[in-house]
Amino acid sequence: MERHFDTELDQLKQQLLKMGALAEAMVDAAVTALVERDAGQLEQIYKQEKEVNGLQVSIDEDCLRLTALYQPTAGDLRFLLGASKINTELERLGDQAINICEVVEKLLQEPQLKPLIDIPKMVAISTDMVRDSLNAFVERNVDKARAVLMQDDQLDDLKDKIVAELTEFMAKDSGSVNRAIQLILVARSLERIGDHATNIAEDVIFVVQGRDIRHHQLD
Amino acid sequence: MERHFDTELDQLKQQLLKMGALAEAMVDAAVTALVERDAGQLEQIYKQEKEVNGLQVSIDEDCLRLTALYQPTAGDLRFLLGASKINTELERLGDQAINICEVVEKLLQEPQLKPLIDIPKMVAISTDMVRDSLNAFVERNVDKARAVLMQDDQLDDLKDKIVAELTEFMAKDSGSVNRAIQLILVARSLERIGDHATNIAEDVIFVVQGRDIRHHQLD
Repeated sequence: MERHFDTELDQLKQQLLKMGALAEAMVDAAVTALVERDAGQLEQIYKQEKEVNGLQVSIDEDCLRLTALYQPTAGDLRFLLGASKINTELERLGDQAINICEVVEKLLQEPQLKPLIDIPKMVAISTDMVRDSLNAFVERNVDKARAVLMQDDQLDDLKDKIVAELTEFMAKDSGSVNRAIQLILVARSLERIGDHATNIAEDVIFVVQGRDIRHHQLD
Repeated sequence: MERHFDTELDQLKQQLLKMGALAEAMVDAAVTALVERDAGQLEQIYKQEKEVNGLQVSIDEDCLRLTALYQPTAGDLRFLLGASKINTELERLGDQAINICEVVEKLLQEPQLKPLIDIPKMVAISTDMVRDSLNAFVERNVDKARAVLMQDDQLDDLKDKIVAELTEFMAKDSGSVNRAIQLILVARSLERIGDHATNIAEDVIFVVQGRDIRHHQLD
């Protein structure tokens, strides 16, 4: 029984990693479509979202089934609750990728406003954070989770910089308003992806330590 | 034992309702401060957020404790998982109220851009949605939850209207860019509050029917 439970937990972890990798690929592809100005890459992302949604339903079912079947306590129970919470975060991450796709569709109908150097930087940081937070979860690694929390400030600073630049663009050139707002929306989506990774990292610390750090300072 | 479990579930429901009412009051007060241009009302909201955060931690602990202690199955297990998910939504709702407060602090340092008729309308709809979704949860009332899902379109339309108006403002008058962006952020926070209520409503349907409707059309 115990060994069977461990096997099931391993499968659950694999499913979460699969879902995370898929969501990450979606975000990456959405911004690549923007940078390369190629709307043809978007269709695949919409398909992947359906896959992410399907995974969300089956992972939640697994969490409930394993809780009912094995009646775990303490750490394992927290792990299953954590898996379910992380599942929700990953699905919303997929939603953010779709939000970006929708913006990209609009932006590609107009000439490029400016080079997008900082937006791919935000993608790199935010998808790193997602990957690291999930690895922290499957390895029950608190240090790795804390490192994710540290990265979030960097992402927020980058977002503030992008918003300030675009605000300046709009003030100077009223013809840029629509496009600048759309780019701000992309930056905010990427910021929210970092927030989801942060939420996952906080869940990891809770799962491992049984201590809720969500509303306290880090040590 | 069974009766004791029911009493505990009732207490859990009361805690969630308390947290929901608090979050709702925070949103309402934040926008009232904006409309009445009175920053003095903000301090109370920051205090209330601490209370919401405290409730989140204790509700999650209760969900885990009740799951471990009573080892519920089927509907009751879904109810406890749902309570924990809804708990997360309510805490983020409080975060949105704080986001609005931060914007209000900036906006009150500048002259008013335009009358804010539609933003209080968004508050009315979004806080109704929150209240209705929580009542649907404690009453395990699927019809009420579905009604919440219907209201979300209305809120999104209102947000689109506000963004369009403010975009026009910015294009006409570059001096309005900063304030217009801030007001767009308020509208987006209110839209996200509606999203949280929608998430709660979907959780209710899952808890009651054991059927995951998150990624399917409604009947």
